Amino acid sequence: MLVVALDPPFSPVLGEDYLRIVREVDPYAQGFKVGLPLILRRGVDVLGEIREATRKPVIADLKLADIGDVMASALCVLAEQGVDAVIAHGFVGVEGSLDKLVEEAEKLGVEVIVVASMSHRGSEKYIDKHVTEIVEDSLRLGVHGLVLPATRPSLIRLARGLVGGSLRIYSPGVGHQGAQPGDALCAGADYEIVGRAITRSESPGQAARAVLERQLERVRACRG
Amino acid sequence: MLVVALDPPFSPVLGEDYLRIVREVDPYAQGFKVGLPLILRRGVDVLGEIREATRKPVIADLKLADIGDVMASALCVLAEQGVDAVIAHGFVGVEGSLDKLVEEAEKLGVEVIVVASMSHRGSEKYIDKHVTEIVEDSLRLGVHGLVLPATRPSLIRLARGLVGGSLRIYSPGVGHQGAQPGDALCAGADYEIVGRAITRSESPGQAARAVLERQLERVRACRG
Repeated sequence: MLVVALDPPFSPVLGEDYLRIVREVDPYAQGFKVGLPLILRRGVDVLGEIREATRKPVIADLKLADIGDVMASALCVLAEQGVDAVIAHGFVGVEGSLDKLVEEAEKLGVEVIVVASMSHRGSEKYIDKHVTEIVEDSLRLGVHGLVLPATRPSLIRLARGLVGGSLRIYSPGVGHQGAQPGDALCAGADYEIVGRAITRSESPGQAARAVLERQLERVRACRG
Repeated sequence: MLVVALDPPFSPVLGEDYLRIVREVDPYAQGFKVGLPLILRRGVDVLGEIREATRKPVIADLKLADIGDVMASALCVLAEQGVDAVIAHGFVGVEGSLDKLVEEAEKLGVEVIVVASMSHRGSEKYIDKHVTEIVEDSLRLGVHGLVLPATRPSLIRLARGLVGGSLRIYSPGVGHQGAQPGDALCAGADYEIVGRAITRSESPGQAARAVLERQLERVRACRG
C-alpha cells in the first residue's frame, strides 16, 4: 500500500545516502518512485543502483510529457537501468504521443502509469477538467496504472468507478501536501506515495512503519 | 531565427559527437535546445559542456510538468550547468506549480519558456483547448517565451495577437514533423526549432545554413 518517493533533499543525517533509505524502508514499502531531481543530480545510474538494492518495483517518475519519439527515446535509457514502470502525463493526449510510448514500453517490458490529476491547486484549472477522458484513454491504451492525488479523494472515487479492478491507482500528496495516510486508500487507491515524511526523517524505516500502521488502521476503519 | 534541437540519434557519421554539431551549426543558430534523451544518456553535465562550446543561449527542454517543489529542485541542478532557459508545460497550471518554478528561476537568473501547444495530433484533444488561457497565464507570470508548434500556424497567430511583442515564441515541428522552414516565422514565431533535419545530416553546418536560407527566403516573401 506504500510506495516511497525518493526525492532530495533527504534528512541531513542521511545526506545523499538514498540506498540506506531504500534498505531501511524496504520491509514496509511495496515500491519506490524516483523523480527527476535525483536522476538529474546523480545520473540515470541511480535507477540501476536502486533496482539492485530492492526486489520491489522501481518507478521512474519523470512525468514524461513530450511527443512520442522523444518519450520513446528517453524510455530506452530508463529501460536499460531495469526500471519496472515509468510515469507519463495523460494530458499530452494519445495520438503521436502516449500511443508511441506505450508501444515502445510493451516491447521493452516496462509498465506505463498515467497521470490523470495532480496534487497542487493549479491542477484544477486544466488537467482536472479532463480526468474522465484521460482515464478512458488509459483504459483504451491498456496501461498498468493511474496517478490521482490523495488531496482529491473524489477524483480517486471517480476513477475507480471507471476502471474497476483493471488499473492500479497510485496516489501522491500524503503528508507534507496535506492528505493523511489512508485517505486515498479509503477512496479506492491501491498505493499511497509518501516522500518527505519518510525520506526527511532521521529514521526512515521507523517513519515508513509508522505510515504503514496508520494506513492499516485507517483502512480497517473505512472498509469495516 | 533558428534554434537547433540536439536530440539523439545523430547522424551515424557523427556518432555521439554533439559538440561537433554545436560548433558546426553555431554560425547559423541563435540558440540550442537540449532534450531529456541526451541529458539522460550523457548526464546533466552535457548541458555545461554545450554551454562552454557556444555563446548562444542553451535551453534545457525537459518539458517540466510537476508540482512546484519538484520543478524548483530540478531547476537548481540545471542552473548549476549554466543553462539560460528551461521549458515547462503550461497545462500544469500556475498555483503550486508554475508560480514556484518562475519564482525560483528569477532568483537563479534562468528564463522560463512555457509550452502552450504541441506539434503532435494528440495535442488537439486537451492542451489546444486551453491555449488562450495558458498564454494569459504566461503573460501574468512574466515568463520569457512560449512554445507553439509550426504545424499549427493558426495557434501561433492567436498567441502573437495576445502577447504582442512581450514574449518570444519558439516553434518546433519543422522538418520531420511536417512544417516547412519559415512557416512558423510567417505566422509570428521568433524562432523555429529544428532537430533531425540538421543533427541527422552528415554535414550539420551545411544543413543548418540551408534551413536558415529557406527561412530567410520564406520570410522575405511573406513579410513583403
